[in-house]
Amino acid sequence: MALLVQKFGGTSLANAEKIHRAARRAIRAKLEGRKLVLVVSAMGHATDELITLAKAISSDPPKRELDMLLTTGEQVSIALMAMAIDAAGHEAISLTGAQLGLVTDSSHTRARIQTISRERIDRELANGKIVIIAGFQGIDPGGEITTLGRGASDTTAAALAAVLGADVCEIYTDVDGVYTADPRIVPKARKIEEISYDMMLEMAAAGAGVMHSRAIEFAKKFGVPLHVRSSMTDSKGTMIVAETAGMEAIAVQGVALKEDLAMVSLIAVPNKPGVAARIFAEVARHNIIVDDIVQNIYDGGSHANLSFSTSAGEARETRHVCERLATTLGIGGVEIDEGVSKVSAVGIGMRTHTGVAAAMFEALSHAEINIENISTSEIVISCIVRREDGPRALRCIHDAFKLDEVAAGK
Amino acid sequence: MALLVQKFGGTSLANAEKIHRAARRAIRAKLEGRKLVLVVSAMGHATDELITLAKAISSDPPKRELDMLLTTGEQVSIALMAMAIDAAGHEAISLTGAQLGLVTDSSHTRARIQTISRERIDRELANGKIVIIAGFQGIDPGGEITTLGRGASDTTAAALAAVLGADVCEIYTDVDGVYTADPRIVPKARKIEEISYDMMLEMAAAGAGVMHSRAIEFAKKFGVPLHVRSSMTDSKGTMIVAETAGMEAIAVQGVALKEDLAMVSLIAVPNKPGVAARIFAEVARHNIIVDDIVQNIYDGGSHANLSFSTSAGEARETRHVCERLATTLGIGGVEIDEGVSKVSAVGIGMRTHTGVAAAMFEALSHAEINIENISTSEIVISCIVRREDGPRALRCIHDAFKLDEVAAGK
Repeated sequence: MALLVQKFGGTSLANAEKIHRAARRAIRAKLEGRKLVLVVSAMGHATDELITLAKAISSDPPKRELDMLLTTGEQVSIALMAMAIDAAGHEAISLTGAQLGLVTDSSHTRARIQTISRERIDRELANGKIVIIAGFQGIDPGGEITTLGRGASDTTAAALAAVLGADVCEIYTDVDGVYTADPRIVPKARKIEEISYDMMLEMAAAGAGVMHSRAIEFAKKFGVPLHVRSSMTDSKGTMIVAETAGMEAIAVQGVALKEDLAMVSLIAVPNKPGVAARIFAEVARHNIIVDDIVQNIYDGGSHANLSFSTSAGEARETRHVCERLATTLGIGGVEIDEGVSKVSAVGIGMRTHTGVAAAMFEALSHAEINIENISTSEIVISCIVRREDGPRALRCIHDAFKLDEVAAGK
Repeated sequence: MALLVQKFGGTSLANAEKIHRAARRAIRAKLEGRKLVLVVSAMGHATDELITLAKAISSDPPKRELDMLLTTGEQVSIALMAMAIDAAGHEAISLTGAQLGLVTDSSHTRARIQTISRERIDRELANGKIVIIAGFQGIDPGGEITTLGRGASDTTAAALAAVLGADVCEIYTDVDGVYTADPRIVPKARKIEEISYDMMLEMAAAGAGVMHSRAIEFAKKFGVPLHVRSSMTDSKGTMIVAETAGMEAIAVQGVALKEDLAMVSLIAVPNKPGVAARIFAEVARHNIIVDDIVQNIYDGGSHANLSFSTSAGEARETRHVCERLATTLGIGGVEIDEGVSKVSAVGIGMRTHTGVAAAMFEALSHAEINIENISTSEIVISCIVRREDGPRALRCIHDAFKLDEVAAGK
């Protein structure tokens, strides 16, 4: 019998009506003859509300207790979902991470999955029940409650789909798929029917917020097809699958904007082995998340200019860290620009298509948008622009690559 | 080293400030050199809010899922309490019922405690930590999450105090002890310094809502002294302890009022063996909770009049049940009066003091309050009065037994 994993995010469970709607969808899939496992997030803003509670008590709560607190959000959701399915006359059972046997390491607030037991799920599925799993949570080998990090219910769903050998893992959310750009900024954005895991990972890294990266990595590793779709409609969403030959024909498949960044520039960094490593080790030690890194030769090779982006919220701490480093390492100066955004074009076809970068720079130039920094990888080109230019930059790149038209290569 | 169990109810944990206050109290006790175990309820109205959520989903939610839902309330509290103690610079660890190893039977929403493991608590106490336990919850032998019934965090605290051999179990609440009557109705009511388990059980049954009966039964069975006191002050509250000789000298120690009752009268019930049993078995099958039962001979002995009280909210269903019974069993008629209250005088000394009942009836007669029904046990006399007469009846009995004065026998 085919097995389906359905994951419902917080916006799909924000109130009783939405929970009933999700329950009806699950029941329909069950009646079509499939075994069904649901993974649910906390309702609406429940997790944020719990974090607010914690912050009212302590500015720096112990991570173990934060996990103890936050996992209640998903526990509420599984219970309510089971009640909704029961109220509709079908059998369901809810399971916490501990009851399921989702074992993680002991890194509270960002635990990694070690093993998932099939035993309990298989038993309940064999009894004809819809099994409802609390996303985001697990237990460590000592029975301590852990969480997998913000947004990690997607990861739970993908991991379960992998372990259970599900035919597909459906991710229900408040948008109806992955778009060529954020439709709130680019009205002409078009829904993508099929996208590769790698491309989706780059889109996520470039700022497209639809799915959690770790979930995509999991799905890629185990070859689980993901179907990102809306909880409000029955229309097909976006399939995230392994790369196919047809995909490569498309040079640029999507564009993304990451806002509220700070550009950190270290001027005249001594250009000798180990300096960059010391800089980023120190930055990482302060839990500052670094986005792109760019380095250029300066002063004929004895020094370099090194810049990286981080979130604007971390600019102040980053400045302190970098100024201390400047003194220690003999760096010429530290400049931080808090008012920037990153616009990226992503596409597997870039590997084989030439001129993609040139086309992007030309489009920005035509729109008189200044590029402050450039970084590229095999399938991504990113430009740092002024914050106020970001949305316009996204629209003009989307236009330049004609992303509103269905690609000829398909 | 002395061990202390402190239980904090929902009103003592209603916001961040109150949680910090409770944490400071616990830390103070720890610094005085005691091992400390805290038992906490859900914050403020959290449990009611969760029930409202469930009712929005289903009019009759499965009990297993109700337990899954409601136990999150206490889990939130233990995490926040641990954060508050940590923020004050002391070590604490929170434990759910499952992590503690509080094993119950499988009767969801009204489970009974079977065993409590000392192992984890002892280990954490040995590490110098304040241990914070989620009240109200446990797991059954199969790992299913259970609850002990409304208000049962008191029971968790008393049971833990028994298992751990605590010197005392302190119950922190929003009143500063047990009073001779409800001070909101009887302004002259006086705080009782010391009361016996049996007396407290009767007071609770008579409507004094300070403590959960099962907790008192637990404490009595294992000889754990309970100290009911206010979370807002440092003043001594009421000690609930085993009966002492001095206590018996006091005829009446307290009075209580139970409002919103319905008086159910079955007229001309055939007076033969098994009829009463059938009646109350049927009533119990409908989960109708019966308060006092009174039976009188009627019609020279061939029939009896049988009456009992129940909560006014259950009057309608009780009428249906009794009318069906009347047809089946040949009962003359069913009368239900929904507008009554019960006023009770409670005291161990009644056993040896004569005239207590007479004094009570006389006081009510002087106040021109009609007595609709009378029931007595070894240490309680209860009268059913009109609902509107209840508060006045309570005050006049309180006066009649001079409960505002410290008893001469003490």
